[in-house]
Amino acid sequence: MGRLMQRRRVLKLSLDGEPRRREDVLAAEEPLEIRLGGRSFSVTMRTPGDDFDLVAGFLVSEGVVWDAGQLGAMRFCAGEDEQGRQTYNVVEAQLAPGVALPETSLERHVYTSSSCGICGTASIDAVTKSSHFGLAGEQPGDLPELPLEILLSLPDRLREHQQVFERTGGVHAAGLFGFDGSLLCLREDVGRHNAVDKVVGWALREGRLPLRNTVLQVSGRASFELAQKAYLAGIPVLSAVSAPSSLAVELAQETGLTLAGFSRGRSLNVYAHPERIIASRVGNSV
Amino acid sequence: MGRLMQRRRVLKLSLDGEPRRREDVLAAEEPLEIRLGGRSFSVTMRTPGDDFDLVAGFLVSEGVVWDAGQLGAMRFCAGEDEQGRQTYNVVEAQLAPGVALPETSLERHVYTSSSCGICGTASIDAVTKSSHFGLAGEQPGDLPELPLEILLSLPDRLREHQQVFERTGGVHAAGLFGFDGSLLCLREDVGRHNAVDKVVGWALREGRLPLRNTVLQVSGRASFELAQKAYLAGIPVLSAVSAPSSLAVELAQETGLTLAGFSRGRSLNVYAHPERIIASRVGNSV
Repeated sequence: MGRLMQRRRVLKLSLDGEPRRREDVLAAEEPLEIRLGGRSFSVTMRTPGDDFDLVAGFLVSEGVVWDAGQLGAMRFCAGEDEQGRQTYNVVEAQLAPGVALPETSLERHVYTSSSCGICGTASIDAVTKSSHFGLAGEQPGDLPELPLEILLSLPDRLREHQQVFERTGGVHAAGLFGFDGSLLCLREDVGRHNAVDKVVGWALREGRLPLRNTVLQVSGRASFELAQKAYLAGIPVLSAVSAPSSLAVELAQETGLTLAGFSRGRSLNVYAHPERIIASRVGNSV
Repeated sequence: MGRLMQRRRVLKLSLDGEPRRREDVLAAEEPLEIRLGGRSFSVTMRTPGDDFDLVAGFLVSEGVVWDAGQLGAMRFCAGEDEQGRQTYNVVEAQLAPGVALPETSLERHVYTSSSCGICGTASIDAVTKSSHFGLAGEQPGDLPELPLEILLSLPDRLREHQQVFERTGGVHAAGLFGFDGSLLCLREDVGRHNAVDKVVGWALREGRLPLRNTVLQVSGRASFELAQKAYLAGIPVLSAVSAPSSLAVELAQETGLTLAGFSRGRSLNVYAHPERIIASRVGNSV
């Protein structure tokens, strides 16, 4: 069971029978405070586990680091709860000498420094400016090919490996796959952004960034923030089981990210840059 | 179509036929910058529309206001995009004289001021301390009764009224219902927290807080933050179509909130305080 899940008593009410007490397994949710250089940087609600990866991936998504060498030591801060137990809910991260601390914690939530006129275009500009890899630049003929069959198989592969969802029904998943369908990393979390951060942070710490020739398959929808995280990690293909938002599509179109949605077994929609997918070579742009 | 949805060309790829170009309708996502007293307070990605409600509900969820009289004028800041068009993505809100500005924008993300030892219990304490209504205090015999049949009907009612989801498949919904099943307010948004904030903000501005004898039905899962939002608005029942997290259940148990999950037509699970639901009177605590 560990820290990923918790057992709870629950009352099942039905129109077809008497109320029944049973035990249910819930996805664990706990706050994680991320401290940078001694200062509180952010608090996120997450499923405990892989917390150093979460912090590392979060810092990649913020544009703070993009190489394992830029990240110094991480440790659980000696926090204790009322019973004197270590909470493992505060991580202190050090940046390597010369790596700039983000100005304020606001960075995460203010995408543009202009005092007014904030808009989707400004948000996209802010993301592209903080990118260290980029996705464009490959010539169409040189693009590694991603077979449609493999892309379509990923949601099932994701579900097969989802241990927490299987038992709780309460978590999002993010899986990183090679273009040959090989599973590189899968993480589950009550927050879908956290699941992606944990995957990206794992890759950073393994020295694998940028994540060329990989697909990030997510269990839900594709928002602007998920597209941002894929792009900043150099992931060329983001595939969602459900719908993308308008701004996720715009970001993908601008940055060269292949964005697929409604991936449902035998068909999917491509919203941007289909040229990496073999079956789509008939048409090169949406 | 308006600002809630956008049309996009999409390439549909299938194992069963040729690639087809078609038009798809996406849920719109745009940044909203919330400014308080002239300072940037937060930026959230949201579906445009009902933005003043979103700001008002956000301020309720932060514990800043709990009565319409505490909120002054709101206006769209004169932001312009590159083409000189008003973006309608920056809202400046005024608080009434005497209402304290939150100390920093960090308030939203740091749930406790203790430098270490952050834990779920501390998060719950922080929420209960910022509550102005509370849910306890009613005597069991005086509790208004919520029939199980009505509670079970709400996910279908929610879906019936979801206009954006119907066309995009890409939004979350939050609906506020009376104990008699009457629909009071429904909002859709790419962010589930935003959908709830828009409902709560509508209620604040209508002078309806605290929202006694109402159910907040949400289309997805029940996280800590959604339980927090329900509690701070005085909503006694939160019902989710999917699973709750462990910390949402803990918050509900501590505060007196009735929390239901996996509401699927003929049955549901009650994780905390079943005493408001008629069919559950056989057992008073989970």
